[in-house]
Amino acid sequence: MHHHSGIEPTAVDGSPLLSRYEAYYDPKKVLNHPEFKILEDGAPELDDPKRNLACAYNQHKTVHMINKPIPVAGKNECIVHVKNTGICGSDVHFWKHGQIGPQMVVRDETGAGHESAGEIISVGEDVKDLKVGDRVAIEAGVPCGQADCDPCRTGRYNACPRVVFFSTPPYHGTLTRFHAHPAPWLHKLPDNVSFEEGSLCEPLAVALAAIERAGVALGDPLLICGAGPIGLVTLLASHAAGCTPIVITDLVASRLEFAKKLMPSVKTVLLNKEDDAQVNAQRVRDACGMMPRVAIECTGFESAINTAIYSVAFGGKVFVTGVGPLEQMYPFGYVNANEIDLQYQYRYANQYPKAIRLVSGGLIDLKPLVTHRIPLAKAVEAFHIAADPSQGAIKVQITD
Amino acid sequence: MHHHSGIEPTAVDGSPLLSRYEAYYDPKKVLNHPEFKILEDGAPELDDPKRNLACAYNQHKTVHMINKPIPVAGKNECIVHVKNTGICGSDVHFWKHGQIGPQMVVRDETGAGHESAGEIISVGEDVKDLKVGDRVAIEAGVPCGQADCDPCRTGRYNACPRVVFFSTPPYHGTLTRFHAHPAPWLHKLPDNVSFEEGSLCEPLAVALAAIERAGVALGDPLLICGAGPIGLVTLLASHAAGCTPIVITDLVASRLEFAKKLMPSVKTVLLNKEDDAQVNAQRVRDACGMMPRVAIECTGFESAINTAIYSVAFGGKVFVTGVGPLEQMYPFGYVNANEIDLQYQYRYANQYPKAIRLVSGGLIDLKPLVTHRIPLAKAVEAFHIAADPSQGAIKVQITD
Amino acid sequence: MHHHSGIEPTAVDGSPLLSRYEAYYDPKKVLNHPEFKILEDGAPELDDPKRNLACAYNQHKTVHMINKPIPVAGKNECIVHVKNTGICGSDVHFWKHGQIGPQMVVRDETGAGHESAGEIISVGEDVKDLKVGDRVAIEAGVPCGQADCDPCRTGRYNACPRVVFFSTPPYHGTLTRFHAHPAPWLHKLPDNVSFEEGSLCEPLAVALAAIERAGVALGDPLLICGAGPIGLVTLLASHAAGCTPIVITDLVASRLEFAKKLMPSVKTVLLNKEDDAQVNAQRVRDACGMMPRVAIECTGFESAINTAIYSVAFGGKVFVTGVGPLEQMYPFGYVNANEIDLQYQYRYANQYPKAIRLVSGGLIDLKPLVTHRIPLAKAVEAFHIAADPSQGAIKVQITD
Amino acid sequence: MHHHSGIEPTAVDGSPLLSRYEAYYDPKKVLNHPEFKILEDGAPELDDPKRNLACAYNQHKTVHMINKPIPVAGKNECIVHVKNTGICGSDVHFWKHGQIGPQMVVRDETGAGHESAGEIISVGEDVKDLKVGDRVAIEAGVPCGQADCDPCRTGRYNACPRVVFFSTPPYHGTLTRFHAHPAPWLHKLPDNVSFEEGSLCEPLAVALAAIERAGVALGDPLLICGAGPIGLVTLLASHAAGCTPIVITDLVASRLEFAKKLMPSVKTVLLNKEDDAQVNAQRVRDACGMMPRVAIECTGFESAINTAIYSVAFGGKVFVTGVGPLEQMYPFGYVNANEIDLQYQYRYANQYPKAIRLVSGGLIDLKPLVTHRIPLAKAVEAFHIAADPSQGAIKVQITD
Repeated sequence: MHHHSGIEPTAVDGSPLLSRYEAYYDPKKVLNHPEFKILEDGAPELDDPKRNLACAYNQHKTVHMINKPIPVAGKNECIVHVKNTGICGSDVHFWKHGQIGPQMVVRDETGAGHESAGEIISVGEDVKDLKVGDRVAIEAGVPCGQADCDPCRTGRYNACPRVVFFSTPPYHGTLTRFHAHPAPWLHKLPDNVSFEEGSLCEPLAVALAAIERAGVALGDPLLICGAGPIGLVTLLASHAAGCTPIVITDLVASRLEFAKKLMPSVKTVLLNKEDDAQVNAQRVRDACGMMPRVAIECTGFESAINTAIYSVAFGGKVFVTGVGPLEQMYPFGYVNANEIDLQYQYRYANQYPKAIRLVSGGLIDLKPLVTHRIPLAKAVEAFHIAADPSQGAIKVQITD
Repeated sequence: MHHHSGIEPTAVDGSPLLSRYEAYYDPKKVLNHPEFKILEDGAPELDDPKRNLACAYNQHKTVHMINKPIPVAGKNECIVHVKNTGICGSDVHFWKHGQIGPQMVVRDETGAGHESAGEIISVGEDVKDLKVGDRVAIEAGVPCGQADCDPCRTGRYNACPRVVFFSTPPYHGTLTRFHAHPAPWLHKLPDNVSFEEGSLCEPLAVALAAIERAGVALGDPLLICGAGPIGLVTLLASHAAGCTPIVITDLVASRLEFAKKLMPSVKTVLLNKEDDAQVNAQRVRDACGMMPRVAIECTGFESAINTAIYSVAFGGKVFVTGVGPLEQMYPFGYVNANEIDLQYQYRYANQYPKAIRLVSGGLIDLKPLVTHRIPLAKAVEAFHIAADPSQGAIKVQITD
Repeated sequence: MHHHSGIEPTAVDGSPLLSRYEAYYDPKKVLNHPEFKILEDGAPELDDPKRNLACAYNQHKTVHMINKPIPVAGKNECIVHVKNTGICGSDVHFWKHGQIGPQMVVRDETGAGHESAGEIISVGEDVKDLKVGDRVAIEAGVPCGQADCDPCRTGRYNACPRVVFFSTPPYHGTLTRFHAHPAPWLHKLPDNVSFEEGSLCEPLAVALAAIERAGVALGDPLLICGAGPIGLVTLLASHAAGCTPIVITDLVASRLEFAKKLMPSVKTVLLNKEDDAQVNAQRVRDACGMMPRVAIECTGFESAINTAIYSVAFGGKVFVTGVGPLEQMYPFGYVNANEIDLQYQYRYANQYPKAIRLVSGGLIDLKPLVTHRIPLAKAVEAFHIAADPSQGAIKVQITD
Repeated sequence: MHHHSGIEPTAVDGSPLLSRYEAYYDPKKVLNHPEFKILEDGAPELDDPKRNLACAYNQHKTVHMINKPIPVAGKNECIVHVKNTGICGSDVHFWKHGQIGPQMVVRDETGAGHESAGEIISVGEDVKDLKVGDRVAIEAGVPCGQADCDPCRTGRYNACPRVVFFSTPPYHGTLTRFHAHPAPWLHKLPDNVSFEEGSLCEPLAVALAAIERAGVALGDPLLICGAGPIGLVTLLASHAAGCTPIVITDLVASRLEFAKKLMPSVKTVLLNKEDDAQVNAQRVRDACGMMPRVAIECTGFESAINTAIYSVAFGGKVFVTGVGPLEQMYPFGYVNANEIDLQYQYRYANQYPKAIRLVSGGLIDLKPLVTHRIPLAKAVEAFHIAADPSQGAIKVQITD
């Protein structure tokens, strides 16, 4: 997922009513439960495979292990033994900064993680398409699904104002051993898709939403700004979509080397922070051999967005998935005179089945993105690796 | 037309070659012609109906009448006796500021005007669908039309880097008595469309391009920012497109009153310059009774664009036809978290036939927009009226 | 609504499971209820305003009044006193033919009607946005709304394989005095929209879905095939959308006269059944003065569809809302060589709020469509009028 | 190219005027030239590399070699030494049947071939981007390009009613040694694209137009009907576009084996002519493991189109590139009730640069499609191979 720094979508009716899911997944039920406990280093629970261990951040900018009660499957719900969880930049950001944007604020212990896959260990009443033993990817955002919710009724459920997005405060995340989840938001994994790949379907869903909504298609010359995890997943996905040529930019040479190794046909452009956007854009056009039709911007930095703007052709598009400062300057005159569309992505909708299909079909190989694999009990260590640029981590996975 | 302040689209091949039209309409042919002459007040030529009078601005920020040679129709070309020309904000801007954006710079005497209609008085060789006496609207931008020009070949001819746009420096405009024009870029007027209306098809083409590209459709709640000429034409056109409710905003009460008189069903919102964009957006939403799906921005001001952004619903669109400062600040975080598309318009393509059809069919009545009608010999006076806010001019027309 | 003669959409998983709504609105609950009763002419119940009178067809091709139990509002449900119901062609078809297509078969007493509006007389638990006394239009199709239903989750709920569509067998219709309906599928009527207009929002929703999906827009030259109720509503709606010119065709002169009176700017073309489609198409093009870009076909007849195909321009579209024989011949070669898109409509999704907005905003005046108004107790008579071409009925309304 | 059997698009104005290209490439100039000559087997000209040999069909359903005058480059024109030409099904059809559809009729000797690439051997006046020695693919359709031609002005130039399409009667084709062609319709080949591949860009352009207009995108489950040349090129292109799973059908097992060898991930379904479309559709769905969203139909047979219709999901699309009988039956009821879009392709526009980019970028490998390579002097033999199903030819290439 991409957490966003803006103002959350508001209910049309301004309703403060909770959805059934908001009430059902009220984090107080966990926090006030007698079994809830913050675990010190070396706590014996960490070695007990029956405990519902999880990793949480809090308002004091601390990340640590916690012990949570073991959930019981309710109606139309499954309990998943989470096998793999990737750490997202937003997990690190919540830990380090305590909030993303003005509305997503960490105010209590909040379980991390939303890039997860695992095995179903129990199913509740009315679950019909899933059974114990099924391997599933977890779609971490659960919208209200009510017919009077415009976004839910019209298929744009990422805009649901009453969504429960696990790991977005106040909801606990999926970086936990046993996670209770509504059955329709679990996606069965085919035999040839591993838990690790199932977990990586989450950042892939972000990239696929961008590609779908940006209208990127076969033969499009494409610019990708930023060779971090989202940039690299976008590289894999846009290559699978037949974009050519593809140019990827970054300020850090080693990240471009990683990109080149991942996808040898990509053209890499090392940007210089000192240069202005037009100079950097010329480098992009030179590497591309033409003007890209679309840029998918995965950094959220003003300078990168402006470079993207000056790179694309008349009538082109800059599609921003990256998150950045609340206010930014942009070259209005140039955008205006060149009919450049600016488009933005907030999370995703209806991407998981497609993500799994692409991985299972062999069109996208996500495995090279994983640079570190750490067992659940050492999840705090994983967070430190993910937060330390010197470690060269792309995707840190926690396994169980 | 809307002149734009940004960087002009560049030819893919960077070619400095002139198109056939660029060479053919080289303004030096006029400027160096022995009959070319700047006319003092009271010059006898001003009263001579056989003279090719025109109105021009120059690099000294002067506007005055000129005498031009009388053109002869070339191959596939017609000579039009221009009957009506509207003054555009860009005409005034070129006069007062000498340039629009970094590339459109007045460096010599430059004939004004690009909103014109008239009668054909002679036709050149190979003209087949037009004849002397036909009444026509003049589409002032003539693209190169070559198959190796991507914009021309793909139907987006407003992006043609070799376009001759009459009245954009260095090309002389259509505010002239006798104008030579390529036949395919003249649009026949039905009997029930006057020259005045034919001339007003130019700003209507701007509004129609916005409506078409913004995807504004039947039943859409719409915000229009700015009740100047483009805002008002957009109001007429979006009403004809079935938008409802329509909210229009301005900083000046009298302009909103004009809008209300023009279209009684519109909801007007007087914005307060002192208030921030979110406060003004709330006024828009209150007047609308819901969140607009689309805003068509016709001012180009940062504050108005930001108000539009905060007004539209999740997944909405702010479509900017207005021109403004080269760089602007915008609320990136909000745009990002609400998947608001930002889209822009540069002139128009393929709108004239539709504009004429809508006027002829009675769906759009442009006549109430004309507040002043001035004869050609007094065109300078017309410029002064158009430039003076106290005159309450919406559209000043010059007639002959 | 438009009932369709084809194969119903199938659940992806082939599931025979009932949705909550299918179980909840099981018609056996009514048919087996002790108060259920077929009413003879002159039965005293017909005069009793407290009885839940309804009008039903059955497998014996009979239409008659019935007495149903009075419903009690369940959770998230409202009881509506139905004030106005329009008779749809499909109601008459079910009565006369006992089925539409291979899957919608009348097998028992089936209450008619799905074009209804009324007043809320009681609300169940959890209803939050509606209250007793509210005036509402009833959206008669209630999809399952589950997240594992692809159509429901992606906003195309008209494809829900588990929809309860009131009056489509086996479900009883809304032509009943007291109707129980899920609250989110009731749409509040503004004060300036009457019950009659609220009821007419149903056929308007069909037309709006066609216009939206056909991409019909401002300034489009349009052909409407058929001047029956759907054709006429489409005429009103496409005029509101700014289409011009609009041509409407029919085989019956009196229907074209009705169309002309309803919308004086429309161009009418009387087709001759004996002529082939290309001859009739030339008449359309002549009346239009150009080739229509889109045809909205509202008859379902092969000959009319083929006339539409030969009428539209290269790259045009024939959009079919009409229902006809299961198999048809079409001019493949012409369609192919002219890139003519053929598109089809099955019911509608997400159109009611827009329909109400357009009526309330004064853009569409539905009232002239109503040719007959009959009280509920005489609903059988209304059916006979609707079924008799000599009566010249366009829309027959039943009131209470 | 795909020749089509329907009625040709008509000029809006019904104009019988010739475009400049129609007059310029008047075949009488060749036929009446003293050097024009039909060559008997063993004629000495066949061995003379300086002769402008070509291969032609005529109204007597004969195919033979001809000798044509050697062209001289006119203004903005190049002479290409054609190196590779593929034989299209339409070439064979013109030879064997003398016409395609009611309008494309062979009335005299007509040079064959429109899938060609070669080397520029001379350039005319005003040619600026090409020079002697450049390697180019020839785009065989040359539209009028006039601003008053709606298709040309709006970017849909395949609809130009005044197009010169080389090898469509009466125009001579590109299966000739020396071909004169307008410079803007020649596409430079990068060093890593061979003449053979350049020639194969023509059928690829057909497939790319289908994929672009069908909106086929990353992750779409796709059905391709027919494993002939167009079906196989579509298979390569849709795989490059990220479609998965892809099912391909045919009536002939050996063609499916070729497809499987070409693209091992494709799922092949052998259809049975005896079975009805619904039974065959179920086989497709079973092989796909789901319902395809889109079918690209490459046969033009009624039975195949109907199978495609019954295969796709609600809201899906059947996109027809194949050509077939002028009239066909289709299951209207099913299409209607399932909102299945039917869309068609006539030749292509704006696809060549993309085709070359995809081949050069390594995303599509066209070479395995060539099963036979024959020198120019033996072109007649090549035609016999292409026309004989027992030869197993996919693409027969003529080289020089």
